[in-house]
Amino acid sequence: MERPASGTAAPRQRLDLGLDAAALTARLVDIPSVSGTEEPLADAVAEALAGLDWLRVDRFGNNVVARTELGLDQRVVLAGHLDTVPVADNLPSRLDDEGVLWGLGTCDMKSGVAVQLRIAATVPRPNRDLTFVFYDNEEVEAERNGLGWLAAAHPDWLEADFAVLLEPSDGQVEGGCQGTLRVLLRMAGQRAHSARSWMGVNAIHAAAPVLERLADYRPRRVEIDGLEYREGLNAVGITGGVAGNVIPDACQVTVNYRYAPDLDQERALAHVHEVFADCGVAEFVVDDHSPGALPGLSHPAARAFLEAVGGQPCPKFGWTDVSRFSALGVPAVNYGPGDPSLAHRQDERVSTESVLACERRLRAWLGG
Amino acid sequence: MERPASGTAAPRQRLDLGLDAAALTARLVDIPSVSGTEEPLADAVAEALAGLDWLRVDRFGNNVVARTELGLDQRVVLAGHLDTVPVADNLPSRLDDEGVLWGLGTCDMKSGVAVQLRIAATVPRPNRDLTFVFYDNEEVEAERNGLGWLAAAHPDWLEADFAVLLEPSDGQVEGGCQGTLRVLLRMAGQRAHSARSWMGVNAIHAAAPVLERLADYRPRRVEIDGLEYREGLNAVGITGGVAGNVIPDACQVTVNYRYAPDLDQERALAHVHEVFADCGVAEFVVDDHSPGALPGLSHPAARAFLEAVGGQPCPKFGWTDVSRFSALGVPAVNYGPGDPSLAHRQDERVSTESVLACERRLRAWLGG
Repeated sequence: MERPASGTAAPRQRLDLGLDAAALTARLVDIPSVSGTEEPLADAVAEALAGLDWLRVDRFGNNVVARTELGLDQRVVLAGHLDTVPVADNLPSRLDDEGVLWGLGTCDMKSGVAVQLRIAATVPRPNRDLTFVFYDNEEVEAERNGLGWLAAAHPDWLEADFAVLLEPSDGQVEGGCQGTLRVLLRMAGQRAHSARSWMGVNAIHAAAPVLERLADYRPRRVEIDGLEYREGLNAVGITGGVAGNVIPDACQVTVNYRYAPDLDQERALAHVHEVFADCGVAEFVVDDHSPGALPGLSHPAARAFLEAVGGQPCPKFGWTDVSRFSALGVPAVNYGPGDPSLAHRQDERVSTESVLACERRLRAWLGG
Repeated sequence: MERPASGTAAPRQRLDLGLDAAALTARLVDIPSVSGTEEPLADAVAEALAGLDWLRVDRFGNNVVARTELGLDQRVVLAGHLDTVPVADNLPSRLDDEGVLWGLGTCDMKSGVAVQLRIAATVPRPNRDLTFVFYDNEEVEAERNGLGWLAAAHPDWLEADFAVLLEPSDGQVEGGCQGTLRVLLRMAGQRAHSARSWMGVNAIHAAAPVLERLADYRPRRVEIDGLEYREGLNAVGITGGVAGNVIPDACQVTVNYRYAPDLDQERALAHVHEVFADCGVAEFVVDDHSPGALPGLSHPAARAFLEAVGGQPCPKFGWTDVSRFSALGVPAVNYGPGDPSLAHRQDERVSTESVLACERRLRAWLGG
């Protein structure tokens, strides 16, 4: 036995990969997998894939990686996370009369996982080598993210020319993603009673040049691989003040810089320093920093993908796991069934038609 | 019986007004009177004054007012509060070898109350009619202030040409006081995800003109009755922000205007509105407003007072009860024994010499 038996383990769930992607989505939804409790679903996925003799299957914790080893000249990754946000009285799944499947994870992203499994099961001779990545803990803090753990422990498992994350993107290709940097700008002053304000130095007033600079800032618009990235430099928080009758000696502005993926982290931070260079900032503190990811749409594998799936690619503004692939040198895009604005909602749902369409288009690209 | 007997009442305390002002201070300190518990001290003061047949004594709650009725052409008030801040292991009083009296209220302001009582007891034929005011709840929120309640219920008891508050002022005359106005300036915006900042309106950025205006503001210096008042207009607080990835829809700047007493409340508020008129403020909210008080040092009674006590008068910057007299049309100053910087401290103290000097000077002014 690979794992010790446990008295509390749920009975093993079996997945029938002969179902269509929509029906398979419902089966996946009905194996709950809130972040941190993905084991039964990871077991079911690993077991289903183990029956496919054209795949090599590896496992690391509750992360499962399956790959063809056909010696083709290109390799692409199809990736998806197994976990969901917490249950909100939206399990089990329910299919309505209009072909809409309701329930936790239908949209984000068990429909994408179902498409991955269907491609794995039904395209034994693809035109490119394929790597299927199923990972845990995407919906929680970044340190727990299974893709991050895989990248650190087994970067070779993720090597590829191109990656598709099957996150809900409404069937649109979302290329790359912006970086995000949060910096605390601290202004200093000197306390005094506000009735004798000339005895002090007002740190809130000292923030005036910072806010002015922000108000006047003209963010870049950058075109990369035909996608336009719109940057933003914004105060997302400000706090200062001691009491209603005290000249404050400290004021802190929290600035968020969302930057196009032509900048790396170092250059993004340097830019923020430059913008506020002469604003009298006493201290810069980096609060949070995640790099962007280039869309990589000029790569032949990506171009073929775009032709196969159609539509106009658009940039991804929020930060997503595509940037983890980008950090490994693998251009990546989001492309999956489901409306992303329905993710994390109690009334999460996906149309079965969009799931089947996604499967169809990926199959066409991969020569299945 | 005027008051119902109470099983928990402390035994009645008696004050000997034949003691000198320093010894009397010690007796007053040893009758604890934290705000809200002034009754035993008010009883003792009222009883001691009742024995002086040249005074008419009135009482309202724990506020005691005693007055001569000699028909003189001027009337002056000597006022002091009976209460103290909470006990901090600094009772009973203790006189050290260097003539310094230690304990709660020695400085703020039972030494001043002792001087009042000594003048009341020993100047039966003053050169001006005298009104002695002893009031409660000065150290707590303004609504409980006994002088405020007296002014509302019995304004005639407070009628006078001039008033001296015997608050600790280190034997200096502090004339009038500044007004203080606190206004909340609210900036509005529109929320959006910070990765799509162009979809929102940043309310923190909208505060830039307000902070700029504050940073550039040149406060007035105003001379009144020979005293220079320095104004101040300051941010004392700022708050804004929803989350680290959200363009904030609200930002609030708390501004404190300390203004010279040549402005009344209406004009002070109008000034703040003018200063920020074109700064895009969505809402002005008055948080707190107390008027200033003119020093009134040009009045004959005040001039005679200044001559008698000597020294160089200076303006009072903080807000004090002199402005309550001012609101009643009675010019008022602070003048009392004790170093005001020792008030509210565990090691509060007063030199007996300063108490005796204060009594001497007031007696000289009043022809005792």
